[in-house]
Amino acid sequence: MPAATRSGAEIICIGTELLLGEILNSNAQFLAGELAALGIPHHFQTVVGDNIPRIHSVLELARQRSQIVLFTGGIGPTPDDLTHEAISSFFEKPLVENPELLAEIERKFAERGREMPPSNRKQALLPEGASELPNPVGSAPGAIWEPEPDFILMTFPGVPREMHRMWSDTAVPTLRSRGWGREIFHSKVLRFWGISESGLAEQLGDLFDSQNPTVAPYAGKGEVRIRITARAASEDSARQLMAPTVQTVQQIGGIHCYGSDDDTLASVVGELLTRSRSRVALAETCTGGWIGQLLTSIPGSSAYFTGSVVAYDNAVKETILGVDKELSMTHGAVSVEVVAQMALGAQWALDTDWGVAMSGISGPEGGTAEKPVGLTYIAIADPDGSVSTSEHRFAARRGREWVRWLAAQTALDRLRRALLGASEGA
Amino acid sequence: MPAATRSGAEIICIGTELLLGEILNSNAQFLAGELAALGIPHHFQTVVGDNIPRIHSVLELARQRSQIVLFTGGIGPTPDDLTHEAISSFFEKPLVENPELLAEIERKFAERGREMPPSNRKQALLPEGASELPNPVGSAPGAIWEPEPDFILMTFPGVPREMHRMWSDTAVPTLRSRGWGREIFHSKVLRFWGISESGLAEQLGDLFDSQNPTVAPYAGKGEVRIRITARAASEDSARQLMAPTVQTVQQIGGIHCYGSDDDTLASVVGELLTRSRSRVALAETCTGGWIGQLLTSIPGSSAYFTGSVVAYDNAVKETILGVDKELSMTHGAVSVEVVAQMALGAQWALDTDWGVAMSGISGPEGGTAEKPVGLTYIAIADPDGSVSTSEHRFAARRGREWVRWLAAQTALDRLRRALLGASEGA
Repeated sequence: MPAATRSGAEIICIGTELLLGEILNSNAQFLAGELAALGIPHHFQTVVGDNIPRIHSVLELARQRSQIVLFTGGIGPTPDDLTHEAISSFFEKPLVENPELLAEIERKFAERGREMPPSNRKQALLPEGASELPNPVGSAPGAIWEPEPDFILMTFPGVPREMHRMWSDTAVPTLRSRGWGREIFHSKVLRFWGISESGLAEQLGDLFDSQNPTVAPYAGKGEVRIRITARAASEDSARQLMAPTVQTVQQIGGIHCYGSDDDTLASVVGELLTRSRSRVALAETCTGGWIGQLLTSIPGSSAYFTGSVVAYDNAVKETILGVDKELSMTHGAVSVEVVAQMALGAQWALDTDWGVAMSGISGPEGGTAEKPVGLTYIAIADPDGSVSTSEHRFAARRGREWVRWLAAQTALDRLRRALLGASEGA
Repeated sequence: MPAATRSGAEIICIGTELLLGEILNSNAQFLAGELAALGIPHHFQTVVGDNIPRIHSVLELARQRSQIVLFTGGIGPTPDDLTHEAISSFFEKPLVENPELLAEIERKFAERGREMPPSNRKQALLPEGASELPNPVGSAPGAIWEPEPDFILMTFPGVPREMHRMWSDTAVPTLRSRGWGREIFHSKVLRFWGISESGLAEQLGDLFDSQNPTVAPYAGKGEVRIRITARAASEDSARQLMAPTVQTVQQIGGIHCYGSDDDTLASVVGELLTRSRSRVALAETCTGGWIGQLLTSIPGSSAYFTGSVVAYDNAVKETILGVDKELSMTHGAVSVEVVAQMALGAQWALDTDWGVAMSGISGPEGGTAEKPVGLTYIAIADPDGSVSTSEHRFAARRGREWVRWLAAQTALDRLRRALLGASEGA
C-alpha cells in the first residue's frame, strides 16, 4: 500500500502480563498523552503477546496505516523477549550485533560490579540498518529504524521509568527533527455538577459538530465533563482559538459549571471560602467523614476548615450538636428539621461562619416506603444564621458507596452555590 | 477466512479519551484477567477511536482471528457513541429499535423522577438479530450478537462499574453455556498490613516456585498481597488444591495477615467489633474524616460505630474532646500526649468502649526537622480505660494523600491488633 495512506503513529505493546490482566497498560496511556500533546495523530493501540506470527500480523497492519510505530516491551534478555527478532524478520533483514552496544552493555554491568550474563549479549543485536535508542537508566537498549521511507519504528522496554526517559531524551527530538510536533493539541476540560450528560448535551447541540476546537462530553463519578480541544502552532494560539467556545459552554452550563481541568468541588469550595475569609464546620451522618476527607484533601485547608462532627449514632446529634430530641422523635432522624438543627449545631459547636450538615439513608438496609434508601437532606447554615435545606433522592440501585459519594459531593456543591450567592449578594 | 482459524477472545476498547491518554485502560485489564480466569485464550487487545471506518478495519481482523469479541465504550446516548452503528453496518444489518428496551430505558428515567431526553432513545437501537446484554446499574444497555456462526460479539459501556456487573451477571453465564470456561483458574488473595513486600517474600522463599497452585506477590496501596492460583475442573477442586498453601502463607504472615479477597481493614475491624459487641468512636485530625469514611463503607456499621470528631482546628480538641490546652502547649498538637487524651476524649464524649485517635502532619507544609511531614501518632483507648500509642513515619515524598491514606489504614490496623489482643486475653 502506498505511503500516502499512512497517517500518524500507533502504539504496539508487547507482553503476556497485559494479556493476563496482571498489569495496567500505563505505557500506552503515557505515550498516547505524549503523542496528543505533540499533535501527532494516533488512531490505534494494540496489545499482543510475545509471539512472532502475531507480532507480524499487527506490524503488517501498522505498515499500511501508520507512519510511526512505537513498541513497548519484549526487548529484555530472556528467550521470550522477541520484539527485535520479530521486526527484523518481518522486513527480511538480519539481526546484527552492534559492537559499541555490546561494549556499552558490558560497561553497565561492570559499573554495578557484575559480570554480564551471556543472555544479555542478545541485547546488542539490532536489525540491520537500525540505530540504538539509548537507555540511560537500564540495561535494555531500544532501536530506531526506518525500514521503508516514511515508516519509522521505535522500540522501548516495558519498564515505565526507562521508557519515559528514552522517550524524552531521544524519541521526541528525533520526531521533531523529522517535522513532527510543529502543531500541537491543547485541551481544556469543563466540569459540571447537578446536570445530566444528556441534559447538557442537548443544550450544547451543534457545538459537538465543531472541528477546531472540538467539543466532546464525557461522564465520570456523578459529574459531567466537556472537553474542548484545539489544534494550533502553539499552546497560546490553541488557547486563543478555544476561548470563545470555552466561554459559550460555561455560559450554557451556568451555575452547574463548577470548574475546569484539575478543579474539584472541594478545591473550588476552598477557594471561595478563602476569598470570603470565612470558615466552615460539618455535621455528617451516613457519609461517615467523607465530606471532611474531601475538603482536607486540599493542602492548606486548615485555613478554612475547622472540623467535623460525624454523628453516626443519634445520641451524638443531641450531646454534641444540640439537636432537640423531640424533633428527631417527631420528624425522624433523617428529616429536613433535624438536618437544619445539625447545621446550626456544627456552626455553633465549632464556632464557624458556615455550617454544613447532611443526613441520609445510604442503605442497603434502613429504607422505608416513605424514606427510601438514597434519600438525603442537606442543610447550609450561613453567616447570618439562616439555614437553607434541600432534599435529594440518589439512585439506590448503584449501591451504598455511590449514594455516599453523591451525598458528599452534593453537600460540597450546595455549599459552593451558597458561597457564590453570598458573594453576589455582598 | 474459515472459522477454523479463529481462536479465543479479543478485546476492542473504543474511546477517544484512551487515544488521548486521558484515562488508563482498566477495562482491558479487567476483561483480560477475567478471560484468564475462565481459561479463554486471548491474544489481542485494540484501542480505537469513535470512528466507523477504523472500527470496521479492526472488526475485519477480529472476524478472521477470534471467536469472541468484547467491545467496551461507545454505547452511550451522544452522537459520538458509534459502537452499535459500526458493528451493524459492518455486517450490513440495520439497527432496529427494541420496544422492550425503550420501555426499560424510559422506566429507568421515570424511577429517578426524570423524563427521558430524546437522545437516549438511541440506546434502544440494537443490530437486527442481536439481543440485549442487560445493564442493571446504568442506562446504556449492551448487546450480544452472533452475526456469523462461531463468532460472538458483546458490547459493554466504558463505565467500569457497569461493565463489571454486566460481565458477571450475563456475559460469563452466556460464555459458559457455550462451553467456555470448563477448566477454570481460581485465585485467593491474602492481604497483609505492616510488613514489606520484600520482607514477606523472603519468608515465603520456595513457595514462589510452586506450579499448581502458583504463588505470586503484588503490592497495592500500602499493603502487600499474595495471590495463590490453582487450575482445576471446578472452583471446589481448585479450593482444595490450594488450601494447604493458603494455610502455610497465613501462618508465615501471622498477625500481619489481616484478611483475604474482598476483606478490607475496615471490614475486619467491623467483624471484630461485632463479635465482641463493642462500639468505637474516633478522633481524627489530618485524615479529616477518612477513618470514619472507611469504617462506614461497611453496611451495618451503625451497630458498632458511634461517630467521630474531626478536630482540624486545635480549639476543637479542647472544646469537644476535652484535651488539656497546656498539654498541646508543652508537647505540641502532634504528640503522643495529645493523641492519648484525644482517644480518651472520643471514648468519653461519644460514650463508647473503644476510642481511636490519630494526629499527624500530612504536608506539604507544616513539617519541621523534629516533626517532619509524615509523622503520625495513633492512640487506642481500650474498654478498661488504658491507652496504647504508636508513632509512625510515613514517606512524605509520595504526597499528602498517600500519607493520609497510610495514617487512616494504620489507625484501623492498630485497632484490629488491639481487638485481637483483647479477645485473646478474654
